[in-house]
Amino acid sequence: MSDYRSHADGARVLADLNALRSIGAYKTGVHKPTFSEPHVRSLEWLAARLPEAGLTVTIDGIGNVLGTSTNPGPKLLAGSHLESQNFAGWLDGPLGVVYALEAARIINPDPNVNGTVEVAAWCDEEGHFGSFLGSGSYVGAITDDDIDAARDRNSDRTMREALHEVGLAGRPRATAERGRHVGYLEAHIEQGRTLEGDGLSIGVVTSIVGIWQYRITFTGEQNHAGTTRMDVRKDAGLALARFCVAIDDRFPKLCGPRTVWTTGRITLDPGAPSIIPGRAEMLFQIRDDDPGVIERLEDLLRSMAADVSAQGRCVVAVERIRTGAPALMDAKFQQAIEAASLAFAGGRSVRMPSGAGHDAQVLATIMPAGMLFVPSIGGVSHHWSENTDDADIVTGAEVFVEACRRLLMQ
Amino acid sequence: MSDYRSHADGARVLADLNALRSIGAYKTGVHKPTFSEPHVRSLEWLAARLPEAGLTVTIDGIGNVLGTSTNPGPKLLAGSHLESQNFAGWLDGPLGVVYALEAARIINPDPNVNGTVEVAAWCDEEGHFGSFLGSGSYVGAITDDDIDAARDRNSDRTMREALHEVGLAGRPRATAERGRHVGYLEAHIEQGRTLEGDGLSIGVVTSIVGIWQYRITFTGEQNHAGTTRMDVRKDAGLALARFCVAIDDRFPKLCGPRTVWTTGRITLDPGAPSIIPGRAEMLFQIRDDDPGVIERLEDLLRSMAADVSAQGRCVVAVERIRTGAPALMDAKFQQAIEAASLAFAGGRSVRMPSGAGHDAQVLATIMPAGMLFVPSIGGVSHHWSENTDDADIVTGAEVFVEACRRLLMQ
Repeated sequence: MSDYRSHADGARVLADLNALRSIGAYKTGVHKPTFSEPHVRSLEWLAARLPEAGLTVTIDGIGNVLGTSTNPGPKLLAGSHLESQNFAGWLDGPLGVVYALEAARIINPDPNVNGTVEVAAWCDEEGHFGSFLGSGSYVGAITDDDIDAARDRNSDRTMREALHEVGLAGRPRATAERGRHVGYLEAHIEQGRTLEGDGLSIGVVTSIVGIWQYRITFTGEQNHAGTTRMDVRKDAGLALARFCVAIDDRFPKLCGPRTVWTTGRITLDPGAPSIIPGRAEMLFQIRDDDPGVIERLEDLLRSMAADVSAQGRCVVAVERIRTGAPALMDAKFQQAIEAASLAFAGGRSVRMPSGAGHDAQVLATIMPAGMLFVPSIGGVSHHWSENTDDADIVTGAEVFVEACRRLLMQ
Repeated sequence: MSDYRSHADGARVLADLNALRSIGAYKTGVHKPTFSEPHVRSLEWLAARLPEAGLTVTIDGIGNVLGTSTNPGPKLLAGSHLESQNFAGWLDGPLGVVYALEAARIINPDPNVNGTVEVAAWCDEEGHFGSFLGSGSYVGAITDDDIDAARDRNSDRTMREALHEVGLAGRPRATAERGRHVGYLEAHIEQGRTLEGDGLSIGVVTSIVGIWQYRITFTGEQNHAGTTRMDVRKDAGLALARFCVAIDDRFPKLCGPRTVWTTGRITLDPGAPSIIPGRAEMLFQIRDDDPGVIERLEDLLRSMAADVSAQGRCVVAVERIRTGAPALMDAKFQQAIEAASLAFAGGRSVRMPSGAGHDAQVLATIMPAGMLFVPSIGGVSHHWSENTDDADIVTGAEVFVEACRRLLMQ
C-alpha cells in the first residue's frame, strides 16, 4: 500500500478551516482586517503548513504567502486570501487557501501525477488598503508609488506603516515568472443563492463581472433648518434621495439580466440635525460582465444628473472612480471543474458568472484562470453569519483536488 | 455737557464685533466650537469689557459669562452666546452679546434711567455638548448628572473634561434669582430672508418655534453587492431614500404655513461600496410653533413607517428624540421693540416667529422675554459666509439700546 491518498481528506480540510476560524474569531465568523494581528497569525499558520506539501515558503514584501517548488514538470497555481472584511465570515478566502493547501498535500507527493500544485494567499483581496494589491503586485500591476499611496480604510495609517509594523517592510515583492504555471485555480463560496436554490454543489465560473464605481456629488446650499422656508431650499440631501429613487425606477428598463447596482455609502455635509445639507455624496457601484450594458447605464446616469442640474436647485456631478473590466475564465479550466464535478459531486454543477470580484480576475490577465464555487447558506456574505454546510465544504474540496489533478495531467 | 451718550455708538459696536471675529477667524466667519481656545478667549474678551459698563464679572462653572450690578432699581437681563457652529458666521451669537454690552455701557451710567442692564453670554447655545446647557443651567433646568453625561459632538471628550481643560471645573454654576429681572432681551441675526426680502430693518419676534426631532431607522438585510440579485435585496439605504422622497411629497398636504422639516444626517451601515446596507438611519427634524400641526405630521410619519414595514422588505422605526415646546415672547417686550423701531428704524419692522431656537426660549420659562432680529444677507446662516450690512448692524444696535431703555423705564 502507498502512504498517500488520491483524493481530498475532508476531515483535515474542516479541521484546517476551523483552526483559521479560531484566529480572530468574532461570533461564528472572524474579524481579520489586512495586517491585523489575527491576519498576520493566519499567514504564519499557512506558512507553517506548506512544507507538509513539499513547498518552500516565502512571505513577500506586500504580504503574499507563496508556497513554491523546484520540482520539474508542470505547475498549477492555486489559492485565495486569508484576511476578512470587518466582522465577516470564516470561509470567504480561507476556503480557497485550504483547498489549495489540500490539493498540494494530495497531489505533490503522488507518483501518478507529473506536476506540482503551488499555493498562494494573496494579500488584501478584501480591499482594506486598495484594490487587489496582493495579486496585482504578483502580476506586476502595482508600483511602489501605488503602495506609497495606499492607506488603511479602517484607520489613517499608510500601507508602508502597516508593512513596517508587521515586519514586512523592505522585503522584495514576488512577481510571476511568465510561463511557469499552466494556470491559476481558485475556489470560493458563492456569496449568492443560485447553487442553494437549485440544490447544486458546484458553480463553474464562466466570467467575473466588472465593477464600475462612481462618486456622485450633489451641491446645493447649506442653510439653517429652522429659518429657511421650504420653497427656497437647495437641499443636497433631498436631491440625493430623489436621485437614488430615480435610479431604482429607471435602471431596470436598460440593464442586462444579471446587472446589479448599489448605493453603499451616503454622506451629508455638514451632517448636523439643524442644518440643511449643502453638499451630499453617494458611492455608487454597477456590476455586469458586459461593458456594453455598463455604457448604456453610465450614459443614463449622466443624463439624469444633467437633468437635475438643469432644474437649477442642485448641481449633480458623476465621477467614475473605478473601471472594472470583466474577466473570462479559461474554457479548459471550466471543463476540468465540470469533469471533476461529475466524478465527485454527481454532476450537480452549473456554469455561472461571478458577481463578486476575486483574485482570479487579476491572475487571468497573465495566465489561464478558473474558479469553482461552493454553496452559501441563504446567500449570506460579508457578514459574520456567512456559512456553508460541512458536507458541501468536503465535496468542494474533493472536486477541487480532482480538477487540479486533471489540469496538471492534460 | 454730560460725558455720556443716550444712544448706541455704532462704530464701537462694529469694532467690538470685528474684534470678536478676529478671535478664531475662518475666512470671513469664525470657527469657535464650545470650549475651544478661541471660544475661551472670546469669553475672556467679554469679561474684560464688562467693567466698562459698571458690571462685575463672573465666569461660572458651565462657562456662562455674567455681568451683574449691585445698583438698586429695576434690572434687565440681555445677552446671547459667543461660541459658533463649526466654520460658521461671525454674527450668530456675538451680535446679541455686543448689543447687550453696548446697552449696558450706554444705559448703566445714564442718570436719566433708573435701572441697570445686566449682560450674559450663555455657554453652548450652538449645542456642541447638549441643548441650551448654559441658559438651561441658569434657569435651573440642568442637573449635575446632565453635565456628567454631556459629550462633545466634535470629539469624544466629556463636558467635564472640557471644563477641566479650560480651568472652569469646580466653579459654582450661577442660577437666576427669581424676581431680580424685569425680563430678558436678546438680539440675533434673522437667519432667513423675510426682512431682506421686504426691505425691513427689524424683526419683532412673537414666538420661538418648537423643534421635534426623530431618529428613523431602517432595518433590511446586509449582503454582498455583487452576488445578491436585485429582486431579493432588502436594501435599507434605498428604503431610506424612498422614505425621504415620500415625506417631501406628503408633508406639504398636512403642514402649516411656516412648518419646516429637514433630514440633516444619513448613515448607511456598514457604509462600504460593495455591501448592500442592512441598516440605515436618518436624523429628521420638524419645526413649527403649533403643536397641533406637529401632532398631525408625526402621525403621518408613523403611518408611513408602518406601511413600509408592512410591505416586508425593511422594517422602519420612528423614535422621537427631542420634543420642543414653542415659546411665546412677552407682549410688552414686543411693544418696546416696535416703539424703538419707530424711533430709530423709521418703523421698518415686522412681527414674526423665530424658526430657529434661541436662549430666549429658555429664559422665557422663568421671566418675560423678547427678541429682536436684524436682516441676514441672502438669509445665509450656519455658514462662514453669513453676514449683515454694517448699516443694519448699527440700526439694530440703536433699536436694541432704545428698547432696553423703554423696558427699564416702564
